[in-house]
Amino acid sequence: MLKALFLVLLPTVMVFAQNQDSIFIKKIYDETLAKGEAYDNLRVLCKSIGPRLSGSTGAKKAVEYTKKVMESYGFDKVFLQDVTVPHWTRGSKEEAYFIKDGKKINVPIAALGGSVASSKSGLMAEVIEVQNFKELKDLGEQKIKGKIVFFNRPMDPTKINTFEAYGGAVDQRGGGASQAAQYGAVGVIVRSMNLRNDDFPHTGSMRYAGGGMIPAAAISTNAANELSRTLKSHPRTQFYFKQNCQTLADAPSHNVIGEIIGSEKPEEIIVVGGHLDSWDLAEGAHDDGTGCMQSIEVLRTLKALGYKPKRTIRVVMFMNEENGLKGGTTYADVAEKKKEKHLYAIESDSGGFTPRGFGIVGNDNQVNALTAFKPLLSPYGLHEIGRGSGGADIGPLAKTGTVIIGFKPDSQRYFDYHHASNDTFETVNKRELELGAASMAALVYLLDNLN
Amino acid sequence: MLKALFLVLLPTVMVFAQNQDSIFIKKIYDETLAKGEAYDNLRVLCKSIGPRLSGSTGAKKAVEYTKKVMESYGFDKVFLQDVTVPHWTRGSKEEAYFIKDGKKINVPIAALGGSVASSKSGLMAEVIEVQNFKELKDLGEQKIKGKIVFFNRPMDPTKINTFEAYGGAVDQRGGGASQAAQYGAVGVIVRSMNLRNDDFPHTGSMRYAGGGMIPAAAISTNAANELSRTLKSHPRTQFYFKQNCQTLADAPSHNVIGEIIGSEKPEEIIVVGGHLDSWDLAEGAHDDGTGCMQSIEVLRTLKALGYKPKRTIRVVMFMNEENGLKGGTTYADVAEKKKEKHLYAIESDSGGFTPRGFGIVGNDNQVNALTAFKPLLSPYGLHEIGRGSGGADIGPLAKTGTVIIGFKPDSQRYFDYHHASNDTFETVNKRELELGAASMAALVYLLDNLN
Repeated sequence: MLKALFLVLLPTVMVFAQNQDSIFIKKIYDETLAKGEAYDNLRVLCKSIGPRLSGSTGAKKAVEYTKKVMESYGFDKVFLQDVTVPHWTRGSKEEAYFIKDGKKINVPIAALGGSVASSKSGLMAEVIEVQNFKELKDLGEQKIKGKIVFFNRPMDPTKINTFEAYGGAVDQRGGGASQAAQYGAVGVIVRSMNLRNDDFPHTGSMRYAGGGMIPAAAISTNAANELSRTLKSHPRTQFYFKQNCQTLADAPSHNVIGEIIGSEKPEEIIVVGGHLDSWDLAEGAHDDGTGCMQSIEVLRTLKALGYKPKRTIRVVMFMNEENGLKGGTTYADVAEKKKEKHLYAIESDSGGFTPRGFGIVGNDNQVNALTAFKPLLSPYGLHEIGRGSGGADIGPLAKTGTVIIGFKPDSQRYFDYHHASNDTFETVNKRELELGAASMAALVYLLDNLN
Repeated sequence: MLKALFLVLLPTVMVFAQNQDSIFIKKIYDETLAKGEAYDNLRVLCKSIGPRLSGSTGAKKAVEYTKKVMESYGFDKVFLQDVTVPHWTRGSKEEAYFIKDGKKINVPIAALGGSVASSKSGLMAEVIEVQNFKELKDLGEQKIKGKIVFFNRPMDPTKINTFEAYGGAVDQRGGGASQAAQYGAVGVIVRSMNLRNDDFPHTGSMRYAGGGMIPAAAISTNAANELSRTLKSHPRTQFYFKQNCQTLADAPSHNVIGEIIGSEKPEEIIVVGGHLDSWDLAEGAHDDGTGCMQSIEVLRTLKALGYKPKRTIRVVMFMNEENGLKGGTTYADVAEKKKEKHLYAIESDSGGFTPRGFGIVGNDNQVNALTAFKPLLSPYGLHEIGRGSGGADIGPLAKTGTVIIGFKPDSQRYFDYHHASNDTFETVNKRELELGAASMAALVYLLDNLN
């Protein structure tokens, strides 16, 4: 009898709770879409501060600005966390061309982050095209020595999720220089990680791992196509590039943190964040100004609605995702050392595009608990909730048992702008940005009320 | 025994069929994403032809161009269908301003399609702001007579689907002039149907239905905001606008049709289409160049893959969706008269944005048959498949028993460009456009193989 009663009551209680949740989630979206401030905040970050590579003046200003914004919203605590970051600078504008029929064909180029400079007068050598490391190895020292290696394998356009296409091509950028140096190459140029054909070179991090330290740079997809065509008819084409980037001493910097303290379980923390640093070429709008401003907006929205979280909700703007991940690793180290109890960490670092869902890193139970939110979130276009990838900055928190959650916007346009000078405020749609913020706020609300 | 065997075999057969479908759908996406031509075709339509309002030279060129493109693809039949269309012209550039503290404040303005001209010297009158027809009625003739009525109810930003927000505001544009004329207004200006605050006036159709025929125009959202603020402090503000649009005699035009003839049931037709006309202010990229070029791409893709459809697959580029729907109504009338058997009609007329799903108009069985495709289509981001709205041009086909299906891309950015001069080729993302085309091709393939 009791069991039967329980079985009758349970669905009613659940439906009631779901209705309450559904009503509150609607309030979240209404607040963010009608009164959201993320877009205006992003404008300041992009237009008044602009590029903010770790160690730069821009990065410092971004720390000060976002701290000030969070203080103005009256969060319970706003503070900085010390982080020591690498400090790489591009130096003066790079130059590149190749010679075709006696004429210079100029090439849009950008040194890869972490690369060494060329000699002061630049580097001129025969260029040889390869598609992958296997082909490089097969050509070997005999064919490679003394040459500039041109990695030209495009991102695969048939991948529906463009991050998969990125994953299938980015080894050329990250490891191409070290691989080529093993066979005596004197420099490396890499086709930009971009699915479009255009004139923007896309920078990004590279690393030296054995072999010599030879200069490495990205060239635009249009230039890569033209160079490749030229090499078919002129296999001994000479390529020239000059760059004077350098790695300076590590610099002091900060993660920027704000929080609303939990009313019932203040020691349990839910993190929502993005990374504050950007590459030096652009305003870092989609990468990752949007993630930072969405994260602040999550807390602003919950506070504006008078919501008193049970757990502590913490915004973290991580420093140095692009070329070191020192913000993410430092944050996790401190959390571990202080024995902080991080339940969930959500990151937005895939652009400020229209929401698609969340990717979860956790055990089956944890993943199932989140996929159970689907009926509440799908009316907002969040259909893709399940096992997936989280976020670079929050990844290190996994060692503390935290469930890692990546906000997943639509991926189609991301690599049009990624790490290039056209990653500007103008490419961000206000509603798409706000829907992302509201989606994260809705998830934070649901997680705060779980168990 | 037989029945049991059937029950054992049936799921196996279904799984096998699903696997075959899944493999072919992947081929469709691969072809369109790697070798698609919709983007290049759209560039020609937008950049070499441009605006193509019914009756204009642009519309005529667009008919010739798209016929030529389909002929070049070697479809089984390519032909024109006669359509008589309204012919409205904007005339020379409109002008508008209001007077504040003795100064002219210029206002970006665009006559609404179908509106009459102002007098040659323009119209100057006191302006009065209203939010809706109820408020207009309450003010009545005493407050309205001799004035310009300013309809300023914004699209509701809290609607997740922006077409809902459009539906909730567009009565002001369509019927505002007639409503205001009843109370003696001398002109009407309407806040643009746009969720952003910017400087683009968005035109669109209006109709006179009783009352006098007074001139009507859209003003930009920024101007609407400024005018509204001004009216709070200066309630007797004078507004001036001048427009010399006119309605000419109806003109001859065409629907453009191409088809691959069915190999098993050629008399059964599946239509896929968009509308070829656009408003005169812009290139008509998202409205609806993308829908036309996606529809052609559906047939190009199926043909490139060597697919022999069982039914006849027909592309229709409808003329005159924007200000008359003569293409859609004529097409349906002819189909009915000829007793053509149209099974399904799919239209893309919500922009070339990342795909979300399909909206279906049909009975429960028909809707259920399509929602059953979800497992095959959701890997491509098509989650929202169910009862919904179809498309203006294919709507009239419902009378012949056709299932009406609207392709549903993400709606967030559509009204940034809709009917305004910024609806240009540059705002279209190649991959999003192609994913839409592939989504429609996949659905056509599944429908062709249904039953």
